[in-house]
Amino acid sequence: MSYQLWYWPTIPGRGEFVRLFMEAAELEYEDMAREESADALVEDLHAREGVRPFAPPYLVDDDVVIGQTALILTYLSDKEGLGTGDLATDLGLVQLQLDIADFVEEVHSVHHPIASSKYYSEQMEAAFERAEDFRANRLPKYLIHFDNAVATNGGPFLLGDQWSHVDTSLFQVMEGLDYAFPNLMRRMQGTWPHLEGLQTAVPDIDGVAAYLASERRMEFNQDGIFRHYEELDEQ
Amino acid sequence: MSYQLWYWPTIPGRGEFVRLFMEAAELEYEDMAREESADALVEDLHAREGVRPFAPPYLVDDDVVIGQTALILTYLSDKEGLGTGDLATDLGLVQLQLDIADFVEEVHSVHHPIASSKYYSEQMEAAFERAEDFRANRLPKYLIHFDNAVATNGGPFLLGDQWSHVDTSLFQVMEGLDYAFPNLMRRMQGTWPHLEGLQTAVPDIDGVAAYLASERRMEFNQDGIFRHYEELDEQ
Repeated sequence: MSYQLWYWPTIPGRGEFVRLFMEAAELEYEDMAREESADALVEDLHAREGVRPFAPPYLVDDDVVIGQTALILTYLSDKEGLGTGDLATDLGLVQLQLDIADFVEEVHSVHHPIASSKYYSEQMEAAFERAEDFRANRLPKYLIHFDNAVATNGGPFLLGDQWSHVDTSLFQVMEGLDYAFPNLMRRMQGTWPHLEGLQTAVPDIDGVAAYLASERRMEFNQDGIFRHYEELDEQ
Repeated sequence: MSYQLWYWPTIPGRGEFVRLFMEAAELEYEDMAREESADALVEDLHAREGVRPFAPPYLVDDDVVIGQTALILTYLSDKEGLGTGDLATDLGLVQLQLDIADFVEEVHSVHHPIASSKYYSEQMEAAFERAEDFRANRLPKYLIHFDNAVATNGGPFLLGDQWSHVDTSLFQVMEGLDYAFPNLMRRMQGTWPHLEGLQTAVPDIDGVAAYLASERRMEFNQDGIFRHYEELDEQ
């Protein structure tokens, strides 16, 4: 049985982190809500009992049903034998994936600082203020943290020549930031050379190359996590 | 060698989730920054190389150094043989711990919606708006999610009679919410009966009882994650 991924069908969002890894590893999966609909996703989630996912994305693998992007990725990586086998190293990968999840949440909060259930237009003033702090402090702090981590083994990937779930996720983060904050990212070019090297190397992974050239790859858009609002980017 | 926990010495914050679990499991640990100082923590963190924690809390166990509260807790639980041994069940515990981490982040963002580096007084208007949404939507959505999870095995703990890292964390969440939002929590009493049962049961775990009666247990305060600002609570 192939894996079943459930995520909103019209945004890359957090689901794209799972897709990228599964495509890089050439795993078979069904992208359930894209085959069916957003309504089918809501229905499936609400029909689940006991310890159920709080929100999409979630993965169904026979009797295993789990939410949380970072957990899905580390579960798949373990199960498919794509870890390093060294405990301290693998724990470091998990920690970085959780750091990425925190950063992705902060990226979303830039345009939704008051309430995720309200429109951007209802919280623009707070978003403008939050974006200033994000550009000046949070984004550089996170990217330097990730750049230092990738530098550890000399690149191009976090572990050196072997890619892991952290690399496909960092690639998506960099692509998303280029889309959302083009002015800032252009001016800061060269500040995180190892991340930029990783961003160039990930599309050369066979599975990723095939995926990016396919119709399965979704473009960033204004309903997702990474959004481009001119007024939130550097002027 | 005992475990070494590094966390800010004057707030319960995220470090308290680790302390509570270690005390419940009666593990030996050194609370490094409380023995030394906040400066010692900053110095230690910055001296670490390669894949290092993004922020406290972090745990040092010989050559393993990991950040992220949820990862620390699941690492300790695995290592000390306190998991269930059933993969699907243990993954559910990890997912819930990550859901708790997300919720704790949202609790913090209620009083710091614009920038964690700025004072509350500089972002009070946005905080007031965010608190409205938090009280009406986010807090109930999360607590009902956790209550449903605890209901699965009939209580008092998530797994039934056996406590886990999820129980000590949910206890801390409930205590924190009672401190931060006393009016709201009083009015909503009875809405999440399994969580309330858990909140009553956790202090009876031997290690927790000893801890809560000791000077090691830190009170909630106005510099931590759970803060009481009258204007952010229900009126």
